[in-house]
Amino acid sequence: MISEDQIIINLSAKSEGFIGDDAAILPQLNDEQYAISKDLLIEDVHFRTSYFSPEDLAHKALHANLSDLAAMGVKPLYILCGISIPATLEGYANDFLKYLSKVCKKLKIILIGGDTTASKEKLFISITAIGKTQNHQIKYRSAAIKDNIICLAGNLGWAHLGFTALERSNNIDAKYIKSFLRPDAKTKEAIWLAAQSSITSMMDVSDGLYIDLKRLCKSSNCGAVIYLDNLVYDTQFKNACQILNLEPLKIMLEGGEDYGLIFTCNEESFNKLYDSFSKIFKYNLKVIGKITKKQSVLFYQNHKFKNLDILPFTHF
Amino acid sequence: MISEDQIIINLSAKSEGFIGDDAAILPQLNDEQYAISKDLLIEDVHFRTSYFSPEDLAHKALHANLSDLAAMGVKPLYILCGISIPATLEGYANDFLKYLSKVCKKLKIILIGGDTTASKEKLFISITAIGKTQNHQIKYRSAAIKDNIICLAGNLGWAHLGFTALERSNNIDAKYIKSFLRPDAKTKEAIWLAAQSSITSMMDVSDGLYIDLKRLCKSSNCGAVIYLDNLVYDTQFKNACQILNLEPLKIMLEGGEDYGLIFTCNEESFNKLYDSFSKIFKYNLKVIGKITKKQSVLFYQNHKFKNLDILPFTHF
Repeated sequence: MISEDQIIINLSAKSEGFIGDDAAILPQLNDEQYAISKDLLIEDVHFRTSYFSPEDLAHKALHANLSDLAAMGVKPLYILCGISIPATLEGYANDFLKYLSKVCKKLKIILIGGDTTASKEKLFISITAIGKTQNHQIKYRSAAIKDNIICLAGNLGWAHLGFTALERSNNIDAKYIKSFLRPDAKTKEAIWLAAQSSITSMMDVSDGLYIDLKRLCKSSNCGAVIYLDNLVYDTQFKNACQILNLEPLKIMLEGGEDYGLIFTCNEESFNKLYDSFSKIFKYNLKVIGKITKKQSVLFYQNHKFKNLDILPFTHF
Repeated sequence: MISEDQIIINLSAKSEGFIGDDAAILPQLNDEQYAISKDLLIEDVHFRTSYFSPEDLAHKALHANLSDLAAMGVKPLYILCGISIPATLEGYANDFLKYLSKVCKKLKIILIGGDTTASKEKLFISITAIGKTQNHQIKYRSAAIKDNIICLAGNLGWAHLGFTALERSNNIDAKYIKSFLRPDAKTKEAIWLAAQSSITSMMDVSDGLYIDLKRLCKSSNCGAVIYLDNLVYDTQFKNACQILNLEPLKIMLEGGEDYGLIFTCNEESFNKLYDSFSKIFKYNLKVIGKITKKQSVLFYQNHKFKNLDILPFTHF
């Protein structure tokens, strides 16, 4: 068993002196505030070591957390990493930690502490991410307003396709596999969006568009209509769905872990938002629905409401 | 499986509106700073559900974290709780969360977020604790000075006795069992000690006196001598050791999870410290050693140095 002390020594050299005491002290902020989030990744629940390399897992563990901060418009600064390591995965875990520290460095995020223990069977990873934000720029889930349009930055269902293909050993386009193994948090987009006053609420899509939008609506005491006609997919997506015997529209509504951003804004300001966003980030925002007064999330297609059975995204 | 949304609903009523968004926003501080620590508790590595009630576990999970903050003189304010729940332990986990929320409330600590997932076999708990402190009152591990005396607030080896008795189904005094199942972080003592300028360094004893003191010395680039003659135990402790076939002195040096505090201070100021501490906290500080220049931790007994083989405290 690699000792906690050894791991701390390995990591602290790279962490600007934070690691190594009982707790980490965060520097004082002036006009800004800290935000904090926590996320778990469990072997054979969220990942398998058979097809996640330690590098993939480090990337994903970090970005899943950064996405939570991004969802509120928060710039990431620090993480703490808790890891429980079964005897059979010591080398894997060591590589994971090495790469985690490397990805952090690349993103100028400092690993300030954590905990390392043994585990009986499964590898267990718990990351706490800390960032900062300006108070007036925080975007909560709870501030969507009736008649706001619902917008999306990012893809829907890609990670679900990748996940299914990996589980079934099917061959589909590599970009879907990568979406599942190495998703990127939309930190830059989120910070830019959070600064736009026309945006009322924002969250990330980690558990699937339908279930996450329901959460946003619940927080905001409102409902939503999703425009199914606007959930457009290309031939490549359709082909992958065919190979995997999945229904494209359902996968776009159910699929989790794409870490796109959904936000709400008033309709009039959208065009300006759209143009600026496209110019800066080189891809386009999509309008996918509208906030309603009625507290339910409905589907609208071809000029009428439509029933669809949507399941929450689960892993294995 | 109890859903994450349901757990969030259950808990957020008790958490002053923090839970329920992607990240939690921490209020701004004026003259103070945030400190943060993270701790893992793994089923069958740190606890067994056979003899830990959900209430015991909630108490211990919280206090183990509070002890890390206490070790630096930090007042606890918030926690985030990550929990991975196997299907067989849903009721247990639900009770754990209920009680965790109750203990937090009692200590005026707010549960501000976390993550809930399924687990294949074992229950995993990851707590992040956040507190605040005044910058000039933080006690680091790294500031011990040669010729400082090493002092202890708390007991040594009690939790180890309790743990061993539970594992072997032996009958010993209930206070040792309680020390293992429901340890109390020495938060009040720590905050008081942190305010004393004569104290140079401080840490909690979570992994055993010998190993933790070695860490303090390493951080401070110094060594230590432990006065074995000062590690005094009473008949009750001796009897418990006899029942369990353990060597009292070794158990006091090796035993972890008592969550006592060790600190270093200059010798001249100790008497005043001792008197004030006894008056306020109704028990006595103990002097257990001295900081040396040589970078090793040695034992001194009966006017001479002594060799002892010390093993790190491990669980199952």
